[in-house]
Amino acid sequence: MDNLEHDETIRLSIDAIIEKFRQVRKTSELQCEPLLIEDYGLQAMPETSPAKWHLAHTTWFFETFLLKPHLKNYKPLNPQYEYIFNSYYNGIGAQYPRPKRGLLSRPSIEEVYAYRHYVDDAMLDLLSAHKLCTDEIINNVILGCHHEQQHQELFFTDLKYSWFQNPLYPVYKEQSQNTGNKLMQAVPSKFKDTRKFNKKWIEINPDLYEIGFNNNSSSLLEGFCFDNELPKHKHYLHEASLSQHLVTNGEYLMFMEDDGYKRSEFWLSDGWALLQSKPGKQAPLYWVEQDEQWFEYSLQGLQILNLEQPVCHISAYEADAYARWKDCRLPTEFEWEVFANQTLNTKENKESGQFLESEIFHPAVELENNPAAVGTLWQWTSSAYSPYPGYKAATGAIGEYNGKFMCNQLVLRGGSCVTSKSHYRHSYRNFFYPPDQWQFSGLRLAK
Amino acid sequence: MDNLEHDETIRLSIDAIIEKFRQVRKTSELQCEPLLIEDYGLQAMPETSPAKWHLAHTTWFFETFLLKPHLKNYKPLNPQYEYIFNSYYNGIGAQYPRPKRGLLSRPSIEEVYAYRHYVDDAMLDLLSAHKLCTDEIINNVILGCHHEQQHQELFFTDLKYSWFQNPLYPVYKEQSQNTGNKLMQAVPSKFKDTRKFNKKWIEINPDLYEIGFNNNSSSLLEGFCFDNELPKHKHYLHEASLSQHLVTNGEYLMFMEDDGYKRSEFWLSDGWALLQSKPGKQAPLYWVEQDEQWFEYSLQGLQILNLEQPVCHISAYEADAYARWKDCRLPTEFEWEVFANQTLNTKENKESGQFLESEIFHPAVELENNPAAVGTLWQWTSSAYSPYPGYKAATGAIGEYNGKFMCNQLVLRGGSCVTSKSHYRHSYRNFFYPPDQWQFSGLRLAK
Amino acid sequence: MDNLEHDETIRLSIDAIIEKFRQVRKTSELQCEPLLIEDYGLQAMPETSPAKWHLAHTTWFFETFLLKPHLKNYKPLNPQYEYIFNSYYNGIGAQYPRPKRGLLSRPSIEEVYAYRHYVDDAMLDLLSAHKLCTDEIINNVILGCHHEQQHQELFFTDLKYSWFQNPLYPVYKEQSQNTGNKLMQAVPSKFKDTRKFNKKWIEINPDLYEIGFNNNSSSLLEGFCFDNELPKHKHYLHEASLSQHLVTNGEYLMFMEDDGYKRSEFWLSDGWALLQSKPGKQAPLYWVEQDEQWFEYSLQGLQILNLEQPVCHISAYEADAYARWKDCRLPTEFEWEVFANQTLNTKENKESGQFLESEIFHPAVELENNPAAVGTLWQWTSSAYSPYPGYKAATGAIGEYNGKFMCNQLVLRGGSCVTSKSHYRHSYRNFFYPPDQWQFSGLRLAK
Amino acid sequence: MDNLEHDETIRLSIDAIIEKFRQVRKTSELQCEPLLIEDYGLQAMPETSPAKWHLAHTTWFFETFLLKPHLKNYKPLNPQYEYIFNSYYNGIGAQYPRPKRGLLSRPSIEEVYAYRHYVDDAMLDLLSAHKLCTDEIINNVILGCHHEQQHQELFFTDLKYSWFQNPLYPVYKEQSQNTGNKLMQAVPSKFKDTRKFNKKWIEINPDLYEIGFNNNSSSLLEGFCFDNELPKHKHYLHEASLSQHLVTNGEYLMFMEDDGYKRSEFWLSDGWALLQSKPGKQAPLYWVEQDEQWFEYSLQGLQILNLEQPVCHISAYEADAYARWKDCRLPTEFEWEVFANQTLNTKENKESGQFLESEIFHPAVELENNPAAVGTLWQWTSSAYSPYPGYKAATGAIGEYNGKFMCNQLVLRGGSCVTSKSHYRHSYRNFFYPPDQWQFSGLRLAK
Repeated sequence: MDNLEHDETIRLSIDAIIEKFRQVRKTSELQCEPLLIEDYGLQAMPETSPAKWHLAHTTWFFETFLLKPHLKNYKPLNPQYEYIFNSYYNGIGAQYPRPKRGLLSRPSIEEVYAYRHYVDDAMLDLLSAHKLCTDEIINNVILGCHHEQQHQELFFTDLKYSWFQNPLYPVYKEQSQNTGNKLMQAVPSKFKDTRKFNKKWIEINPDLYEIGFNNNSSSLLEGFCFDNELPKHKHYLHEASLSQHLVTNGEYLMFMEDDGYKRSEFWLSDGWALLQSKPGKQAPLYWVEQDEQWFEYSLQGLQILNLEQPVCHISAYEADAYARWKDCRLPTEFEWEVFANQTLNTKENKESGQFLESEIFHPAVELENNPAAVGTLWQWTSSAYSPYPGYKAATGAIGEYNGKFMCNQLVLRGGSCVTSKSHYRHSYRNFFYPPDQWQFSGLRLAK
Repeated sequence: MDNLEHDETIRLSIDAIIEKFRQVRKTSELQCEPLLIEDYGLQAMPETSPAKWHLAHTTWFFETFLLKPHLKNYKPLNPQYEYIFNSYYNGIGAQYPRPKRGLLSRPSIEEVYAYRHYVDDAMLDLLSAHKLCTDEIINNVILGCHHEQQHQELFFTDLKYSWFQNPLYPVYKEQSQNTGNKLMQAVPSKFKDTRKFNKKWIEINPDLYEIGFNNNSSSLLEGFCFDNELPKHKHYLHEASLSQHLVTNGEYLMFMEDDGYKRSEFWLSDGWALLQSKPGKQAPLYWVEQDEQWFEYSLQGLQILNLEQPVCHISAYEADAYARWKDCRLPTEFEWEVFANQTLNTKENKESGQFLESEIFHPAVELENNPAAVGTLWQWTSSAYSPYPGYKAATGAIGEYNGKFMCNQLVLRGGSCVTSKSHYRHSYRNFFYPPDQWQFSGLRLAK
Repeated sequence: MDNLEHDETIRLSIDAIIEKFRQVRKTSELQCEPLLIEDYGLQAMPETSPAKWHLAHTTWFFETFLLKPHLKNYKPLNPQYEYIFNSYYNGIGAQYPRPKRGLLSRPSIEEVYAYRHYVDDAMLDLLSAHKLCTDEIINNVILGCHHEQQHQELFFTDLKYSWFQNPLYPVYKEQSQNTGNKLMQAVPSKFKDTRKFNKKWIEINPDLYEIGFNNNSSSLLEGFCFDNELPKHKHYLHEASLSQHLVTNGEYLMFMEDDGYKRSEFWLSDGWALLQSKPGKQAPLYWVEQDEQWFEYSLQGLQILNLEQPVCHISAYEADAYARWKDCRLPTEFEWEVFANQTLNTKENKESGQFLESEIFHPAVELENNPAAVGTLWQWTSSAYSPYPGYKAATGAIGEYNGKFMCNQLVLRGGSCVTSKSHYRHSYRNFFYPPDQWQFSGLRLAK
Repeated sequence: MDNLEHDETIRLSIDAIIEKFRQVRKTSELQCEPLLIEDYGLQAMPETSPAKWHLAHTTWFFETFLLKPHLKNYKPLNPQYEYIFNSYYNGIGAQYPRPKRGLLSRPSIEEVYAYRHYVDDAMLDLLSAHKLCTDEIINNVILGCHHEQQHQELFFTDLKYSWFQNPLYPVYKEQSQNTGNKLMQAVPSKFKDTRKFNKKWIEINPDLYEIGFNNNSSSLLEGFCFDNELPKHKHYLHEASLSQHLVTNGEYLMFMEDDGYKRSEFWLSDGWALLQSKPGKQAPLYWVEQDEQWFEYSLQGLQILNLEQPVCHISAYEADAYARWKDCRLPTEFEWEVFANQTLNTKENKESGQFLESEIFHPAVELENNPAAVGTLWQWTSSAYSPYPGYKAATGAIGEYNGKFMCNQLVLRGGSCVTSKSHYRHSYRNFFYPPDQWQFSGLRLAK
């Protein structure tokens, strides 16, 4: 390849990145359209962030890791934003206290949008200078886009949690007639056996497998993964089977009706202690009981619990307890990855699962016809979030992205109905603390 | 007086009440004008409430205690408001949890204003029917107006506390040129003796005094007081002197520079324990140290500390410690009331002090010329908030207004620069917990 | 009086003090006789102290305020004791953390007794030198004795609280046959009206009264009071009546059976909030329900609740709620003192009430015959613990004894069944926080 | 083998078990000999238990899992012990609250010893009936012995933690002259390079290894392991090296002097957050700074920090931060096990390390001559405590022994100077939470 050709390749590649950048940045703003200004600032617990903060912090990421170090003469719109929109990068400096993000009524929404557009313009200036775009710049732009896609997902999980505190149960988007009918159909409390269809188990043969991101694309965009998915490495798996289907609300209700929350023998010690510390009736987050009928809050409002949908917003403790009740267990993240690679052609899989693009913001698949191997819900695994053998974090503050969280958390796999398709890959490792319920987390059994 | 005359008297009286009602309701909305929609929902600690909630709760008060029981066919705008805008009236029913008020992004600001106007219209319907206005109705309307004036004051204390959490230090109202110059003049850190003017001490003779509200007006409006100011009763006072002036920032700084916060001998035991539990440098709330210069945050933004202004936003512990350092003590509320009655002609007094109508929202008096006996700052007393001998709370839920708080709190007297003139009277008993700092609280010495 | 006579008077006076000193010191040790070594170190909450610590701290008091400043060549047995047995005297120095007192297995019990005897010997050396005994020395010895008597009372309240944590319900002293029968008689849960005897109300006429300690004795010992009982001063009282009898367990149970703990209208706001934060059934501390029968734990073990005994170990919130339920209120401490002075001849009174010398350690009076005006139980008043007009604390660290606690607490009056007779006087002001239940606290109604 | 031979084999085997039982039971009591009665009840935090409780709970284990189900006509000494000495076995019933164990002054020490001997006698009755000893009985007796040996180790870790709260720094056992000199030798604060000897790194080849307990003994006693060490299974390891030596105090001090505790880049996120929440200077637990000299508290009292000894009582966060500072990492538990098996002949290894039998209760090895591969200190690994593939917990309450803790904890390997030699094996998996410091935990680097 001569120089000219090479330049042209880079140009095309950068053009694709610019397109990705534009699309991602626009999506964040489109997601906010149904919001009132009053909604942008909500923060119902320290772990969640206001919509406004998501909009600003993702912008801060581009400003901090691209514009300040790489765009000549770049002048920050407001120097105080470095402090107030830093999430957790100690290498950049101190951070405005996380639990107080909801108290930042200023800058206003209008000013935050102005901040976004100011940074967008500067980013396009930076990227337009093709020849100056080093690998580091290109990689960080792609990282910044995926970072923003992560926050697009958190936008939904956090908004849902905040709105749930409000007895008026706000609705993000009224469902269309078709989906509506399906979702709202009344289901009797004592339901018929939802397991009428045969649940299949997918077997994994004992062998040495390759785990981790497999870069078989020449595209920079498609060749992206987070550092925690690397290096690709060998892992020995013993014989195992994973269920083809996610556990449903109906199945989970049977666990509850069998006193699942009251029988210590199903629970990990820390999970049981957590249960004992909470007064009142236990259930998945967002389940609401009224007059002996279970309802579920979703971004479509409060609705009768649909027993055929997969159970979601359960903690790892709940997932594990349910599995024990069924004489099963959670899969490891390695089993899950082999299962996913084995049963699904990547392309089909991306089609089949329910991702953010479905715009339903709640698991709505018909399980019988669509086993939802990926998408729909993140699936708890029993694997602690740890570095792969030979893992190296990036140098500098950006290296704080993943590595420093590798303790006390569990890996979830599979993507969910609020994950962007273009952000997902099978090697994706999401991670949360075992008690966490506010993510779209569900359960696939293993044995 | 024949019937006709009597009716006319009532009509005039009710007209005055209607006028008061209109004016009070309008003031609450005017106060919000400088706010962005983003500001309405802020709640930085459980003890404070969002502006939006103040607007709605004061409306709820009229709806609950007047419209629902007394206006025939009144239909609530939204039945759920009974729950979400109830503050603490167990007699009415359960309450939405106080620490979560900031999470109510819905109803929107627009809806809250619509709620206000809906209730206003209904209230005017009720009051227009003069002949049907019983004493209970009239009394509760006046109570509702004073209740709303209390919340108008809390609007400022709560907003200030929330905004202070924001490193951008929002400004409620830019000060006019004149005030500005006065407030912003630089003062050297090691200041000259601000006590150049002679502070006078006002003596109280030992005697049996009358304490409590003295109704010497025939006007229903002027004859109002809260139940906790009654009954008027005898109280024996021993010899005492109260300072004519409030303690200034400059004087308080001398206490600090004399290691006042580090010397246990000045502190009440609970106050000392509280100090030890807090890391970092101690100072009145809203004092900010930057480069060895003290600044103070007010609703006019962050400004250099003015040493000649009275010190404010101190806890009762700080007030008490300062007093001990000066070999003085806090006055009792009884001494304070006698002092106020003795030294001030009520009319003059209302003119002289700095009330909300000054629209400065911060103590700005020139102490030398104006000793500020009332207004400017609430003044801590050493008196526990207790019932007067023979105290009777109103019956029903409205009786929860004052009586149930008569434990663990101290009385403050005098009104402040964010108290409405027309809401104030000398017998007014404000009450907060000893550690509280977010009210406009200052200190008058006694010995 | 010539010098010789004067000297003789002092000598006799000091001899009486030495006798008091010996007696008090011996009593502390006698109280511990029923304890196992295992019991000496128990501390079930920060507010309580281990028996061992009481023994050592009272010794520390004499060492710190008498031996170190006044006994020439006095050498402390162990210099570290100054730190570990200091309770709260900041003027002396830092203190070993109060919540950890139960962790001091060393010094051993044996070493603590050795410490006591070492200090006792030195104290007798000091006091034997009559001529060198200044007023300060004499006053501090008397204070030290009363200080130790306070701790003798706390010994019982603290031990009871610690033992109550043990499901084996240890017994301090088996009751004698006679008392035993009386206490253990079964009482039906649905009891007969225990109010069959007429409860009398004692009226107080409105007038100006003298409040505070009245020193009408020439004896140094009998002329003692704490600084908080002074100065004697005038206080105006309005018309009031106080019940001649304490509220009984049976009466309190009627309050409970009338849903007293579930009806917010009876409760102070802070008390109600405290109730809501506690799971489970509410009752006075030490009440234990087994098979729908109420038992009460006392230092005689767990026994069926005696409905005719006065209710004890209630918080001020419980006392106040009961009083409201009865359309009564708590008395003020001033009313109580006038009531006590008025109805009781001091001498008779000391005879009539049940004090520590009864060695029952639990209220056991027959209420019908003995109204128990003083003794039996401390009685909550509605009065905040505040300084009397003109109050002056002692100078130096010893001034921390009382004054610095004059905030957030309520006064209790009357002495209890674990208070020494010789320690008690009508002007005695005990003080605890409203939620506190572990003292022998009961209730006398006022109206 | 004919029946007679078979019986004889069993008899010999059971005799060995009886011998083990006697020895273990006696050891627990011998360990308590240096204690005063006052020391037996100390509990300085919920995670630790009083010595008395250890004595009783280990007895409870035999009573609960052997005598009650298997010894005919067994009558418990005190039925309440089932409740108060149950640790965490929900399958047995409710448990006396763990944080209150220090409040059980009764039963007395004497009664606890009587309980031990009562159960010992019954156990010997049970075991003497050889023919009735089923496999379940035999296995549970061996398990009970190892359970008690675990508590023998906890006896030391817990006692040390409790005594450390006492400023008198109690001594468990004065060291002999020889050891004493070595331990107490003064070391300059700015020390010479303690790494004068060459630290070797042991390499592990990438391969598929067998992990887990390897039962190659025909002896029942030696064939014992906990269920969490099974099943033996294959695990693929990548290339790695483990340091032959543990990190020393001197090395750790260099980390501290390089501001290790202040540089976020070395810390896991949760570890950094924990650091920020603690005021004051950070150091390993039991390090005490006096006059700019570091001391260390051990069961031999407070002594000058020995820089050549391995650093101990560090949390996993501290271990991990140190490793990053050295550009290394923690080993996985699999790497550790292969390392241990590879470098050490089991027999030699048991000789070489420092176990409880050394009776020094503190790491005292000369690192240069003895690399201390096992023994001396438990070594943090980066491996979450998880079930091995195919793990099965025992059925019934005894299955709560290990399995329910498999979440949120990390594995430590290697045994320590307070672990019994006969209790240790290379496959042993100890587990604690990352912040825990009160175990004898140290650090071996990997890279």
